[in-house]
Amino acid sequence: MSAGHPHRYSQDIINAGLTSIEETDMPQYKAPLRDMQFVLHELLNANEHYAKLPAFQENVSRELVDQYLEAAADFCENELSPLNQVGDREGCTWNDGVVTTPTGFKEAYQKYIELGFPSLSAEEQYGGQGLPNSLGIAISEMVGSSNWAWGMYPGLSHGAVRTLEHHGSEQQKDTYLPNLVSGVWTGTMCLTESHAGSDLGIIRSKAEPNEDGSYAISGEKIFISAGEHDMADNIIHIVLARLPGAPKGTKGISLFIVPKFLVNEDGSLGERNHVRCGSIEHKMGIHGNATCVINFDRAKGYLIGPENRGLNCMFTFMNTARIGTAVQGLAASESSFQGALTYAKDRLAMRSLSGPKAPEKDADPIIVHPAVRNMLLTQKAFAEGGRALVYLLAQYADVVEHGITEEERKFADNILSLLTPIAKAFLTETGSESAKHGVQVFGGHGFISEHGMEQIVRDTRIACLYEGTTEIQALDLLGRKVLQTQGAMLRDFTKIIHKFVEANKDNAAMKEFIEPLASLNKEWGDVTMQIGMRAMQNPDEVGAAAVDYLYFSGYVTLAYLWARMAEVAQQKLAAGTTDADFYNAKVTTARFYFKKILPRVRSHVDVLSTGVESLMALDAEHFAF
Amino acid sequence: MSAGHPHRYSQDIINAGLTSIEETDMPQYKAPLRDMQFVLHELLNANEHYAKLPAFQENVSRELVDQYLEAAADFCENELSPLNQVGDREGCTWNDGVVTTPTGFKEAYQKYIELGFPSLSAEEQYGGQGLPNSLGIAISEMVGSSNWAWGMYPGLSHGAVRTLEHHGSEQQKDTYLPNLVSGVWTGTMCLTESHAGSDLGIIRSKAEPNEDGSYAISGEKIFISAGEHDMADNIIHIVLARLPGAPKGTKGISLFIVPKFLVNEDGSLGERNHVRCGSIEHKMGIHGNATCVINFDRAKGYLIGPENRGLNCMFTFMNTARIGTAVQGLAASESSFQGALTYAKDRLAMRSLSGPKAPEKDADPIIVHPAVRNMLLTQKAFAEGGRALVYLLAQYADVVEHGITEEERKFADNILSLLTPIAKAFLTETGSESAKHGVQVFGGHGFISEHGMEQIVRDTRIACLYEGTTEIQALDLLGRKVLQTQGAMLRDFTKIIHKFVEANKDNAAMKEFIEPLASLNKEWGDVTMQIGMRAMQNPDEVGAAAVDYLYFSGYVTLAYLWARMAEVAQQKLAAGTTDADFYNAKVTTARFYFKKILPRVRSHVDVLSTGVESLMALDAEHFAF
Repeated sequence: MSAGHPHRYSQDIINAGLTSIEETDMPQYKAPLRDMQFVLHELLNANEHYAKLPAFQENVSRELVDQYLEAAADFCENELSPLNQVGDREGCTWNDGVVTTPTGFKEAYQKYIELGFPSLSAEEQYGGQGLPNSLGIAISEMVGSSNWAWGMYPGLSHGAVRTLEHHGSEQQKDTYLPNLVSGVWTGTMCLTESHAGSDLGIIRSKAEPNEDGSYAISGEKIFISAGEHDMADNIIHIVLARLPGAPKGTKGISLFIVPKFLVNEDGSLGERNHVRCGSIEHKMGIHGNATCVINFDRAKGYLIGPENRGLNCMFTFMNTARIGTAVQGLAASESSFQGALTYAKDRLAMRSLSGPKAPEKDADPIIVHPAVRNMLLTQKAFAEGGRALVYLLAQYADVVEHGITEEERKFADNILSLLTPIAKAFLTETGSESAKHGVQVFGGHGFISEHGMEQIVRDTRIACLYEGTTEIQALDLLGRKVLQTQGAMLRDFTKIIHKFVEANKDNAAMKEFIEPLASLNKEWGDVTMQIGMRAMQNPDEVGAAAVDYLYFSGYVTLAYLWARMAEVAQQKLAAGTTDADFYNAKVTTARFYFKKILPRVRSHVDVLSTGVESLMALDAEHFAF
Repeated sequence: MSAGHPHRYSQDIINAGLTSIEETDMPQYKAPLRDMQFVLHELLNANEHYAKLPAFQENVSRELVDQYLEAAADFCENELSPLNQVGDREGCTWNDGVVTTPTGFKEAYQKYIELGFPSLSAEEQYGGQGLPNSLGIAISEMVGSSNWAWGMYPGLSHGAVRTLEHHGSEQQKDTYLPNLVSGVWTGTMCLTESHAGSDLGIIRSKAEPNEDGSYAISGEKIFISAGEHDMADNIIHIVLARLPGAPKGTKGISLFIVPKFLVNEDGSLGERNHVRCGSIEHKMGIHGNATCVINFDRAKGYLIGPENRGLNCMFTFMNTARIGTAVQGLAASESSFQGALTYAKDRLAMRSLSGPKAPEKDADPIIVHPAVRNMLLTQKAFAEGGRALVYLLAQYADVVEHGITEEERKFADNILSLLTPIAKAFLTETGSESAKHGVQVFGGHGFISEHGMEQIVRDTRIACLYEGTTEIQALDLLGRKVLQTQGAMLRDFTKIIHKFVEANKDNAAMKEFIEPLASLNKEWGDVTMQIGMRAMQNPDEVGAAAVDYLYFSGYVTLAYLWARMAEVAQQKLAAGTTDADFYNAKVTTARFYFKKILPRVRSHVDVLSTGVESLMALDAEHFAF
């Protein structure tokens, strides 16, 4: 702990970087390569997966995957992790529309470009490496776990690239993609306005046609992550706005490209567009990322996709963004677990109730205490289970994009559509819970900034809000994905679980996992039916049930993945392995998940069964007196 | 939202106070006087309670209670609430051992003294007003809800006063109490050292006898709230340290008075003692309160109480401090509820699933959505239920101190001992949950500092850590209070619930509350028995069960209080009242609690029943690879 400074770091310390903080206090990220490889190669058979996709069957091997993972691990551990607290302390600074990022952020971004990470999964035609998104997501986990605020600068670009790839004209792609793909430019998504967040149908930004075919965009957008900064030569904003006379609501919104600097025909940067960062927000966390108010004052913009279909074009991007946000939850579980585990093995307090475990010391390390172990194992179960879920989704996303048959693409799209809101909401909420445990394991020291645990709580809270709050994800899951398809999407997934259950029904070693999983898989359908019946009487039953339904779905989905991980680990152990400790830990963690986490479904089912009535009875004016 | 400033407020804005923030953005606390009066007068019959205690039967009337509440409400709403964000933004500043509190804090403290609040519950002999602590706690709820960081300055003094009242010599009381009671001086509690928090048995600070009967105190204490500041003329530290040759562990710790300025025989301030604030912490929240490292360098100190019995003397204070911390949880629920409710009635987004509720507007106010109502009602249920629990405990504390018979004092002490860890841990955890809902109701805006919701999350997180973490409270409850008394303390309380259940068993209107309460009251005993049996085989079963047991106990305790509140409200409604909306809201909220919150006990019971095994199976070295 540095002595003699006010609780807000003085400018001197900021300028001095980290020198005033003892190095031992600083949390250091270590990429969990062994576990990532377990999930990719052993659980999800990445080799087989890529072999089935023509886009990757030639150029993606296990060796290539591991090389990329190791290169990214090195970059994240040595470049990004040391900047994580710097970013939090310094934050970004705004001066008359110009935003300066924290010390070291710009240099790290240059290295990231030199290492070729921005272009990883982009199309080769525009300078991309044409590698799978499912590899990109594993790398983004490491980037995000080591420094989420930094990772959002390239992360937002990714969304702009995907939107252009899918909906841009050839000329638009040629103009903007090469520099976005290489990372020389970055991109943003400009959706939210101060009165319109979850409900984009009521946005007010306007797009008026110019004589040259472009549009004059006017309006104020807020919460624009990486909306302005000093890391790239140009920033390409993707903006939602209304054309004159457009229909009210979501069917009257169009999508526009609005570059910070206009681009000349020869590709060089032209004049400054009328886009200005009006301010950056004071916020709870992710201080290293500039969250901007962006003012468009008849800025020149170019329509992407058809008129009034802007929200539909955005959906392409939104699924990707939601999986990206699920990664933030996983990252919070992983990084808080790493910090708490190190501390719990080191910190001494009290004796084990079952007798001293370190009699030579003044007290036992706190990892001997069951309550501490409970918190650590909870973090571990959410981190490793969350990793399995995110990587699984990324494989489905590969198939949606590159699958050979329409049938397999459609099936993958259904599963992806169903699991995306679950992954986004459930992993960010459990990530927040893990972050809380991280603070709690540290006791009072968890509240102190230098230890880094409280930063994770602050940084990760936004994950439950942006890209659709937990409540919005829950409605998307229960309303749009489950009930509107008459349960068809859900059945696609419960059948997968059922097949797994059937395949293991005679496996005595798996009984402790298969029995509860089979029962919950059936209950998932029953609970859905029950809500569906009630919703026919009163549509508000959907809103009343959605959040508990989402948690139920999340716990069951993770139970399925933990059971699969236990199965793989048991097979390895049965076959004989030099890595028995690793596989035994997997089985033990699966058991912990089933005994100590999974019972939470009971309360959610009980709450669900009580319906909407007690929620709606109170008049809005009678909540307080 | 103020435009054009970096996310860290610049010094200009700090100096300009609040002028750069639009007033509508600022959360304004409004004391919930109607509900406080309901709990004090209608639920807990404060008049009858005071009439039974000789210390208060003459001088405490309903009118006097209400006058104090209204005066405190006025002070908290108009003086403290406007300083809450100032304190968070500015924090305290340290300069060569001198700590400056945020703008306005000192002036507000002067007003607080002038209004006579510090002396409220102190003994009249030392200038106190001799009023009940149960009145003081209602006032501290308002202070804490409007500005927790500020409230800790007088709050910590209270602990020092209580310790001196109970354990000081006559001379010590005469020397220190009058100025502490009036508020001219403040006090601290110096327990924690950097290696010793939950486990005070391993502290290292030393006390060496001087020839004049005083002691030379040496050591470093950390996390000393209000340890140094500019609000009072002197600071009286109450310090734990070891005498030479003292036994190891908790039985070798003594308690000392160490004033910042020594006090001359005539009561005037003498020379500066060798006590120095080495630094203040950079921390997650409560920025307005200085959390100090305090260095004692052969500082002059005076023994309080017997040698080596310091921890026992501290226990007096600890119960009070734990109830005080429970108030912080209640305060978080109340203040986040107030912020979220205002926003939910105002913010428009989407249409109700059951059809537009405000067709004249662009969208419906979000309070129409069941998920938003669920969060608001959860906050409300925890705030109002928490208030009932805290005020009930304060009445028991009155009886412990002022009850006529040994029997009633002993009985009250048992109930208080049982319920204190429940109130401390359960109300701070539910307070944290409420604060989280506050952010969530605001959507993305919840993450933005100006709205004040994220500050509540940050400020209240410490409540689950200090004065014994949630895990420590859980062990105190299950180990010390329940199992070590062979269930006797628990039976005292479940009998009270049983009597209430019996009294209402023929009351049809209460059936929905009485039936589940009766069943859970019985289950409380069954679950305890089950754990007790397992603990005989393996003492670690206690640690494995404790936290879930605490949550179970908390939910049942609040169910009992919500049932009692529903009963009172139903009686008022049956008798005819002009305040029907208030009482109907009470019954509706009770119903919400039983339908939507109470089912959480099921998961805790299920988790409890799986025992310790899955927690202990993993070797400490195999948590990560």
